Amino acid sequence: MIRFALLGCGRIGRVHADSIDVHPRAELAWVYDPIESAATEIAKRYSTTIAPAVDVAIDDASVDAVVIASATPTHVDLLTRAVRAGKAVLCEKPIDLDLARVDRCWKEIAALNPTVMIGFNRRFDPSFREVHERIAAGDIGRLEQLTIVSRDPAPASRDYLAVSGGLFRDMTIHDFDLARFFLGHVVEVYATGANVVADYIADLGDIDSAVVVLRGEDGTLCHITNSRRSVFGYDQRLEAFGSAGMLSVGNQHPTSVRLSNGTQTEAAPEYLNFFLDRYTPAYRAELDHLITAMERGSQPSPGFADGREALALADAALESLQTGRTVPLGSSHRRETEA
Amino acid sequence: MIRFALLGCGRIGRVHADSIDVHPRAELAWVYDPIESAATEIAKRYSTTIAPAVDVAIDDASVDAVVIASATPTHVDLLTRAVRAGKAVLCEKPIDLDLARVDRCWKEIAALNPTVMIGFNRRFDPSFREVHERIAAGDIGRLEQLTIVSRDPAPASRDYLAVSGGLFRDMTIHDFDLARFFLGHVVEVYATGANVVADYIADLGDIDSAVVVLRGEDGTLCHITNSRRSVFGYDQRLEAFGSAGMLSVGNQHPTSVRLSNGTQTEAAPEYLNFFLDRYTPAYRAELDHLITAMERGSQPSPGFADGREALALADAALESLQTGRTVPLGSSHRRETEA
Amino acid sequence: MIRFALLGCGRIGRVHADSIDVHPRAELAWVYDPIESAATEIAKRYSTTIAPAVDVAIDDASVDAVVIASATPTHVDLLTRAVRAGKAVLCEKPIDLDLARVDRCWKEIAALNPTVMIGFNRRFDPSFREVHERIAAGDIGRLEQLTIVSRDPAPASRDYLAVSGGLFRDMTIHDFDLARFFLGHVVEVYATGANVVADYIADLGDIDSAVVVLRGEDGTLCHITNSRRSVFGYDQRLEAFGSAGMLSVGNQHPTSVRLSNGTQTEAAPEYLNFFLDRYTPAYRAELDHLITAMERGSQPSPGFADGREALALADAALESLQTGRTVPLGSSHRRETEA
Amino acid sequence: MIRFALLGCGRIGRVHADSIDVHPRAELAWVYDPIESAATEIAKRYSTTIAPAVDVAIDDASVDAVVIASATPTHVDLLTRAVRAGKAVLCEKPIDLDLARVDRCWKEIAALNPTVMIGFNRRFDPSFREVHERIAAGDIGRLEQLTIVSRDPAPASRDYLAVSGGLFRDMTIHDFDLARFFLGHVVEVYATGANVVADYIADLGDIDSAVVVLRGEDGTLCHITNSRRSVFGYDQRLEAFGSAGMLSVGNQHPTSVRLSNGTQTEAAPEYLNFFLDRYTPAYRAELDHLITAMERGSQPSPGFADGREALALADAALESLQTGRTVPLGSSHRRETEA
Repeated sequence: MIRFALLGCGRIGRVHADSIDVHPRAELAWVYDPIESAATEIAKRYSTTIAPAVDVAIDDASVDAVVIASATPTHVDLLTRAVRAGKAVLCEKPIDLDLARVDRCWKEIAALNPTVMIGFNRRFDPSFREVHERIAAGDIGRLEQLTIVSRDPAPASRDYLAVSGGLFRDMTIHDFDLARFFLGHVVEVYATGANVVADYIADLGDIDSAVVVLRGEDGTLCHITNSRRSVFGYDQRLEAFGSAGMLSVGNQHPTSVRLSNGTQTEAAPEYLNFFLDRYTPAYRAELDHLITAMERGSQPSPGFADGREALALADAALESLQTGRTVPLGSSHRRETEA
Repeated sequence: MIRFALLGCGRIGRVHADSIDVHPRAELAWVYDPIESAATEIAKRYSTTIAPAVDVAIDDASVDAVVIASATPTHVDLLTRAVRAGKAVLCEKPIDLDLARVDRCWKEIAALNPTVMIGFNRRFDPSFREVHERIAAGDIGRLEQLTIVSRDPAPASRDYLAVSGGLFRDMTIHDFDLARFFLGHVVEVYATGANVVADYIADLGDIDSAVVVLRGEDGTLCHITNSRRSVFGYDQRLEAFGSAGMLSVGNQHPTSVRLSNGTQTEAAPEYLNFFLDRYTPAYRAELDHLITAMERGSQPSPGFADGREALALADAALESLQTGRTVPLGSSHRRETEA
Repeated sequence: MIRFALLGCGRIGRVHADSIDVHPRAELAWVYDPIESAATEIAKRYSTTIAPAVDVAIDDASVDAVVIASATPTHVDLLTRAVRAGKAVLCEKPIDLDLARVDRCWKEIAALNPTVMIGFNRRFDPSFREVHERIAAGDIGRLEQLTIVSRDPAPASRDYLAVSGGLFRDMTIHDFDLARFFLGHVVEVYATGANVVADYIADLGDIDSAVVVLRGEDGTLCHITNSRRSVFGYDQRLEAFGSAGMLSVGNQHPTSVRLSNGTQTEAAPEYLNFFLDRYTPAYRAELDHLITAMERGSQPSPGFADGREALALADAALESLQTGRTVPLGSSHRRETEA
Repeated sequence: MIRFALLGCGRIGRVHADSIDVHPRAELAWVYDPIESAATEIAKRYSTTIAPAVDVAIDDASVDAVVIASATPTHVDLLTRAVRAGKAVLCEKPIDLDLARVDRCWKEIAALNPTVMIGFNRRFDPSFREVHERIAAGDIGRLEQLTIVSRDPAPASRDYLAVSGGLFRDMTIHDFDLARFFLGHVVEVYATGANVVADYIADLGDIDSAVVVLRGEDGTLCHITNSRRSVFGYDQRLEAFGSAGMLSVGNQHPTSVRLSNGTQTEAAPEYLNFFLDRYTPAYRAELDHLITAMERGSQPSPGFADGREALALADAALESLQTGRTVPLGSSHRRETEA
């Protein structure tokens, strides 16, 4: 039985609490949140204990792993403390908004050979994963192009966005990681954006829509489309074009009901509304992956370096947005975290 | 070049005129209709000549084939005259509403070894035909069940229905023929119906909805669903279940546009509205089949016997509707027309 | 917290154990199965206790409800004992294979005003349920026809089928209940069948394929297609045609991946394999319905009378199969259980 | 009746000959091709006359319009001669590969106020057109993003590609025009490409795959994906995301048949193979648009300026590919041809 401490009891914290609860070989030892009511709610629902202070949870010798689901600025500190306490870590993305800080963090913990997994849930979505496996199995020959569509149902609040790090670090970062899952190392980034959704996003100096083009080491092109608004629901799709075929992932519906009437035919209901619905199985598979890795003594994936690389791509995208130029990503980026 | 005389210039006559017009090896020599304005319209559009009397067209030595698209009660007479004049015939369904009359007709013409094709367009629909060919090619193993869905967008007028011969002889007859295309000889019929669409149909003593179950010689079951109303457009589908798979035919759209918005997703436009739209390619393929058969000196199919069998199934369905019993169709039915 | 005793630890017993386990207001107090290894497996997995005898579980005063998932011949006895012990009951379908025995059972327990729910899971499938709700909301006007397709991936073993009561009582019974969910009282049944799947089914005197036609009180026609084999996976579909539109339920896939290559396009993976996969959410909703009814002191639905009616339809279908005639179901059928 | 001269009897010439043949108000007066066998084939098929020299066709006073379907380097000369002869012109894309030559051509003919239509067929595809009309009707609110997928089934021959002007001028030019159809004026272009399909394309100094990002005047982003290979058939899709919904255009199948078997479900046949199949209705609508414009004395669209702008976008894309930078397209581009 793997014993978990959960740091952060907001929306995403609840998802992890639930995944731990239903996993047959996991238990939730502690929960912690500076907002007491949030901690209380989860503690009550899953019959577990609120830690009086974050260190009580981290330092408990009976705890095997720490899930970091707190506010982004706290990630690096909590991650470092958990690693030093000898715990495995599942840290929500992004590790931090500041790449230099991420690199310093790694320098501090690298020698400890830590078990750190980053919460890029899309790698564990059954559909994306099936495409990944079938490409590996040769179902579409050599991968030639990759298309990622990623649109949120509606923009987050002004308050959230103000500290989000911007579209690329907050939202596209998931797509950067998904692209790396399929392409491996990325050598070039181009990004552009627009403000078409909401004025308050422009006021924050952020964009609300983007198109990003990536080039993989072997020439494979990937393009990502983002928007902070998709009125028909969470839009999460992928197309992988290969020399021998295409595998695609479509959006998903809560039921298989279709309506035909005098004005239209075969109309489906709205899609699964947002990440809590669409990625529930992914979050569970993600946690299971960590637990299995811990049991086997292997490293979970995506790891710290993957978290670092996705952030580096976000930074490069921002540079491209500002300069209008393709930004090369030298192999040096790679060595820093892989060494 | 095959020269055609077209008898009957209503809605279905226009379809045949158009098929003849676009066929590279056919030409429209004469048109005839007791309603002069109907004849004039087609003659003008396709630059052809109105026959002053039906015999002028039928007896013209330069005419190779006669298309009978006139009112049902005239079919037998025109068919007989055309056959006697040595012409090939494409006769719209049904041959007649009276099976005895159909059998007498055959007795009169059988010795002439006539070339008679019956206008069961569904056999020439590219989708149904593809299923037929792929079953023959073994794509789904042995056929085990067949489902036919056939619904008209809206009921015809009271005047039309009053002389239509009833649902089974007027509408289901197409589905009976389609069933025979897949099942071969049918040995049992069960039929039931309901009045749920329009009161005036009940007033005529007719039904507006039906479920029919057929059993083929080798045990294959087929069921047919009919309705005089389908508010979402012409509903023409088929499912062929086999020991190794299923082939299905879905409805067809005029474009491949889909709409997703705040209340629904992937909504398609209405289906192709009615038989003139859905079966345009079928009508053309049907005519081409006749022309090719004439050129090769072979018999076109479906032939007179198929027209007769579909009507016999309609009669058996009516008997079943009235008695609530399964009606067996002895092999005798078969011999009569095939001998 | 509702405490359950689970009688029967086979395949379907495990499903119910799992539903109880994940329900926040349910707990599994006892499990019982004459085959000790089956009971042990579930007891271990869900950390519960094996009852040394069935009465120990039924008579435990702390137990609120009994789930009967044992072999069909034991249902009536266990149901009667559980009701007498004052427990709510969730009994798997069919109540029994013998309608007379079912009616005797009811006579014995009716006076106790029992809370008995029958495990017709399809009523709780989110897609079928959505169609039911949207019809009630008027989305397709008045219901005019209903089509149910229900095919198992592969026939059960000879041993299972030998005691199953035949296709209608074992398999179609689910579809009969689903038809009643939409049509209300059924007044006529026609059924026919065939043997096209496996010789050993014919040897047992059973059919392996069927077409059934039902007529509802208000004239609505329903037809059901069954087969013991569907090589492409569990085939569970429904179409509800109304005066203003059609609502359909399609089959469901484990992922939303599609493959296009040199020989085909948009090919989906196999469907969810069988009822354990397709109806997992339905089984959970079913249990939740019972729990909520118990908490509110209301009667769960479908109840004993629904179990009785579905069996009566199966018997009528068998009579129709044997006689080739439509079998009327008088309103008397109704009164017997509703009185 | 509009009388046409057809210059160029290759693959695309045959398409136009066929469109003229089936149009009720058009006739094919002359055909011309330097390769006599090509001219003979079309002349025979459509019962028309071969012009002994191109001027004979262009200068025939009874000819109303000239279709230029010859090799690209001949377009400017033929277009200029036809305009001087007072004929309306339908010129295949591109006008020329050299933007300066296109601009000189316009200077020579502008004063004649010519009727020149450029053969951008996609604007007449019923699906793309429906999306355009529904956006105009407000079905998806304000257009925010546009995605165009355009992949040929297989790369053209080395000989064809050597004189094609490269991917952007030969293939993407259709997508540039389609983008302009939806976005209006384009103010920025970014393009990148890769060689993943065939070595001989790289040897020619050309790319075989591309991603292009455009920005419209009002900020709408558009991205285009191209490949010279799509093993599953011609891939021609579009997604228009708006503030209130999304309209998409999917690929199209020759039939509505789907196959489900033991390894997959709902597999469709291959898509319509290539432009001759997919865009047949578009070519006919294109010709009808020209004829209707001529009859009404209005200017057909897309016109010369549209042909010029698409080429300017191709040139800008090439510059972006070479520099890795976003290329701005000043309003000057616009004025040159619109003045």
